[in-house]
Amino acid sequence: MNKKQLTDEIKRTGSFLCVGLDTDIKKIPAHLLECENPVMEFNKAIIDATAPYCVAYKPNTAFYETMGAKGWENLQETVDYIRTKYPEKLIIADAKRGDIGNTSAMYARTFFETMGVDAVTVAPYMGEDSVKPFLGYDGKWVVLLALTSNKGSHDFQVKTLEDGKKLFEQVLTTSKEWGSDDTMMYVVGATQSEMLAEIRKIIPDHFLLVPGVGAQGGSLAEVSRHGMTKECGLLVNASRSIIYASNGEDFAEAAATEAKKLAEEMKSYLIEQGV
Amino acid sequence: MNKKQLTDEIKRTGSFLCVGLDTDIKKIPAHLLECENPVMEFNKAIIDATAPYCVAYKPNTAFYETMGAKGWENLQETVDYIRTKYPEKLIIADAKRGDIGNTSAMYARTFFETMGVDAVTVAPYMGEDSVKPFLGYDGKWVVLLALTSNKGSHDFQVKTLEDGKKLFEQVLTTSKEWGSDDTMMYVVGATQSEMLAEIRKIIPDHFLLVPGVGAQGGSLAEVSRHGMTKECGLLVNASRSIIYASNGEDFAEAAATEAKKLAEEMKSYLIEQGV
Repeated sequence: MNKKQLTDEIKRTGSFLCVGLDTDIKKIPAHLLECENPVMEFNKAIIDATAPYCVAYKPNTAFYETMGAKGWENLQETVDYIRTKYPEKLIIADAKRGDIGNTSAMYARTFFETMGVDAVTVAPYMGEDSVKPFLGYDGKWVVLLALTSNKGSHDFQVKTLEDGKKLFEQVLTTSKEWGSDDTMMYVVGATQSEMLAEIRKIIPDHFLLVPGVGAQGGSLAEVSRHGMTKECGLLVNASRSIIYASNGEDFAEAAATEAKKLAEEMKSYLIEQGV
Repeated sequence: MNKKQLTDEIKRTGSFLCVGLDTDIKKIPAHLLECENPVMEFNKAIIDATAPYCVAYKPNTAFYETMGAKGWENLQETVDYIRTKYPEKLIIADAKRGDIGNTSAMYARTFFETMGVDAVTVAPYMGEDSVKPFLGYDGKWVVLLALTSNKGSHDFQVKTLEDGKKLFEQVLTTSKEWGSDDTMMYVVGATQSEMLAEIRKIIPDHFLLVPGVGAQGGSLAEVSRHGMTKECGLLVNASRSIIYASNGEDFAEAAATEAKKLAEEMKSYLIEQGV
């Protein structure tokens, strides 16, 4: 999926919501545990309920890997379900991968060929040759970590380099030369919205994947005010606040209600900014 | 496995070799492709052939994930095979994971509970709360990326901070407070041996996992000279140069020959340093 297709879907739905599929068998409604494949029952219901209000899905690989090979089957089934039923949605594997070139090439093959997602999150610490192998696929995206939403982002990402740049600014400046705004996005946490104006000076046109709204406490209004471009340029993710909105039999309706609430707020910001 | 047990195995074998199981179905000997489970036939033969000459195995998750759920089954079978037949060997999942706290906790559960390896490689970019969940397991290890063996290590890891430290030195200085030398190791590439003396000033006693000898061109002699402690403190990894030493029917014997050669050289350095 290219940038124009993604932007068109944002305009069509009036939403830039990404639903994070952090499906934890220990947290899904108890009545689903009687099904043969509880994770897929849960994911299908969540996907069907939220599809009208979002433009992207982001399964988090950790939550599937923890169940071993069965979990990877569930992850593949989830991707296949979205791809078949909602081909207009962007699928991001939230995997935070990154290794030396020949190994990153295997990860790229895993996510873009075997699994068939549109985008994968990648960690920048190992530099160019750890990221480049993911950039060799037409219509696929690298979502590179820049400034994350967690407390640990203060340990290294905001350290100042001798030339005055912060590390995450160096990551943006260096890495934007590796691809284009049609092949790379960046992760910037919603809890870091005060940094968005500075970030937009370095990467005015790239899409940002913004986690941290919802359970982590970031503000959608602030993110939209400081991060939105004239083509939107934002994917704001919410995971737990949507998928665990209820753990009763009404979990899917509750997820739809939460997603709709965010989408309506998003629509108002899109109108405000004239997207 | 704790530090004393690992050091005892190094003394028993006279080796500090880690064999990297980067098993690529496209590279294994053609005659194995007729077997029902070619990856496991290959891995078992490599493990049996090299066990006398090494103290650790390091399956690289990328090479298994690329085959989807079947690959994860192979990865689990490989871990189980080593655990059962060679319980004295350290098993490192080379996975380069790292995410916000609740997600890293799922990765820790994946590797230490579901899969049952002894150690996992972790990327530092997201800071303390992305690493801490891996440190809550008795006898398990975090192997944190510090200074990697690839060209891309120059992009960010060696950048100088405003206080004069390089980024990887800051990673070492900050992160060594999160655990101890009985719970944390660090990745330092063999191609970076000129930095080892500086690194040993910051972490005099931690084990280092050193990739980059062999196919990547690092020198075992230099690594041993500058990185060895009085308890050894080194695990030197070789992957491709051992497991793909031959792609004929003699692949296992050829792997044993390569591993033995490295182990004999290692023994001479252990004697030299009085370990």
